[in-house]
Amino acid sequence: MAAPPQEIKKNKMFGGFNRRYRHESSSCGCPMTFTIYFPPAAESKKVPILYWLSGLTCTDENFIQKSGAQRAASAHGVALVVPDTSPRGLNVEGATESWDFGEGAGFYLNATQEKWKNWRMYDYVTKELPSLLDSHFKQLDTSRASVFGHSMGGHGALVVFLKNPGKYKSVSVFAPIANPSESKVGQKAFKGYLGEDRSLWEEYDATVLVKKYKGPKTTILIDQGDEDEFYHEKVLLPENFVEACKSGGMPVNFRLQPGYDHSYFFIATFVDDHIEHHIKSLQA
Amino acid sequence: MAAPPQEIKKNKMFGGFNRRYRHESSSCGCPMTFTIYFPPAAESKKVPILYWLSGLTCTDENFIQKSGAQRAASAHGVALVVPDTSPRGLNVEGATESWDFGEGAGFYLNATQEKWKNWRMYDYVTKELPSLLDSHFKQLDTSRASVFGHSMGGHGALVVFLKNPGKYKSVSVFAPIANPSESKVGQKAFKGYLGEDRSLWEEYDATVLVKKYKGPKTTILIDQGDEDEFYHEKVLLPENFVEACKSGGMPVNFRLQPGYDHSYFFIATFVDDHIEHHIKSLQA
Repeated sequence: MAAPPQEIKKNKMFGGFNRRYRHESSSCGCPMTFTIYFPPAAESKKVPILYWLSGLTCTDENFIQKSGAQRAASAHGVALVVPDTSPRGLNVEGATESWDFGEGAGFYLNATQEKWKNWRMYDYVTKELPSLLDSHFKQLDTSRASVFGHSMGGHGALVVFLKNPGKYKSVSVFAPIANPSESKVGQKAFKGYLGEDRSLWEEYDATVLVKKYKGPKTTILIDQGDEDEFYHEKVLLPENFVEACKSGGMPVNFRLQPGYDHSYFFIATFVDDHIEHHIKSLQA
Repeated sequence: MAAPPQEIKKNKMFGGFNRRYRHESSSCGCPMTFTIYFPPAAESKKVPILYWLSGLTCTDENFIQKSGAQRAASAHGVALVVPDTSPRGLNVEGATESWDFGEGAGFYLNATQEKWKNWRMYDYVTKELPSLLDSHFKQLDTSRASVFGHSMGGHGALVVFLKNPGKYKSVSVFAPIANPSESKVGQKAFKGYLGEDRSLWEEYDATVLVKKYKGPKTTILIDQGDEDEFYHEKVLLPENFVEACKSGGMPVNFRLQPGYDHSYFFIATFVDDHIEHHIKSLQA
C-alpha cells in the first residue's frame, strides 16, 4: 500500500469538509494534490463518489472555490473528488510556457513521448486515485462512482467513461473538448504527448470512442454556453460528439445555454442539475 | 453628473449578469472598480439592492467568484453591489506593504491623516456609490437597500448601518471586526488613518455606535465560525458587540457556527440565510 496522502488544508462547508491532500504519485512520478469534499453523510456511512475533472490551467482548487457544488453534494450525500490537471514541478523544458500544454494541461491521457513520460493522468485518474481512495478513505464507496468535468476535463470525463464501461455509473460535461483530434488545442496536445500517429489519438477522442462503445448506456448530459469563445473558435466541437452519440445509439441531452460563456459562473449556474443527473445513477 | 462607469467584464450567471465596472471616484481621487450582480428580474422592473462589503485584501471579485450568493439573489430578485476595499494605484508610500493596512484595507472610514487623504471609503460607500447607481442604473431601486459584509467588511456594514438610520433597511455580518478600537488590527488601522484621538475612533466602532443608535430597530444577524483564527486572536470580538446591542436595546441574532473558519467556504454556507434575512426587510 502506498504511503497515505497527507492532509494539507481543511475547511468546513455546508456541514461537510473540503480536505486537500498531497501524495507521491506512482503514475506521474511526482507529488500530486487533490481535494475531496466529504458531505456530512460521510460521517456515518459510505457515500458514493463524483469525480470532477478540471479544465486547462486549473488545479484541484478552482472547482472547490468557485463552483458551489458542495451545497448539492451535501444535500445529496455524495463526495466530490477533484484531482489536479497534470504533474507539476518536474522541470521539464517547456512545461510552463503554454496555457494549453505541459503543466495544467494533462489531457487525461498517458503520454507516449519520452519527454512527457510523467504525463500519465489517464492512469492517475482511472487507477491510482481510485485505489488510493479505497485504501485510505473507508467512508468512500468507490464502487459507486460517476464523473463530470469542464472543457479539457469534459474531454477527460467522456474518455474515462467510454474507455471503462461500467466503472462510472454516469457522465456529464460542461463545454467539453469533445473531438480533440479535430480541434487546434487538442491537436497540439495530442501531437506533443502522443506523437504523429493519429490512430493513437483516437484512443483519447470521445467522438471516436462513443461510436465503438459497447457498454451500458446512460444519458450523457452536456451543457454548452452559446457565448463561449472556445465554442466559437471550434476548440470544443460538442455537436460532433452529439452526432456521434446519435450514430452510436448513445442517449444524449445536449443543452445549448443562451448567453453563457466558458467560466465558472456558467458551471455554478448548472452544477446542481449535473449533480442531480448523477445522483439518479448513483442511488439506483 | 459624473462620467458613466465603464463596463470592463460581464458574465452570465443564474439567468442574470455579473457586470464589473471602472469609474473615476471623486471620493477617493482614483479609478475604482465595483461589480453588480443583476438578477433576471432587473430586466423588467426596479429591484432592491444588497451591498456587500468585503474583508481585508479582497477586491470586488472575491465575493462574486466564491460566495455563490447569486443563486439566491437571482431567486429573490435582488441586486448585489460589491465595491472594492480601498483606493489603489496611488503610489502612497507603505500602501502595499501590509495585508491589514493601505491598499485592500480601507476600513470603510474617511481618513483624517494627510498621507491617507484618499482613503475615503465611508463617503465612497454611503454617498458616491449610491448616487452613481441612481444616475446610471435605472433598474436599481436605491431607496430599498440593505448591507452585509465579512470581517473588515462586517465592521463596515455595521458602521454604515448605524451611522445612517433608515438608509439601509437591514444589516447582517459574517465574522465582523466588531469592536475595532479594542482589537490589534483595528487599532493599527485607526491609528494610521485617524491618528491618536480615540474619540474619532468611536465614530467608526460599531460596539460604541450601537449604544447610541436611535434609529429604526431591526434584528442584526451575525454568523461567526468557532474555528476562525481571527476570532481566537481577538481581532473580531463579536461578543462585545452583542453585549452592546443588548444594553442598547438592539435585537441581535448571534450564531456561533461550530467548526467553521474565516474563509469564503464559511460565507458560502450561510449566505442564503443572510439574503433571506434581508429580503424580509427589502420587500416589507
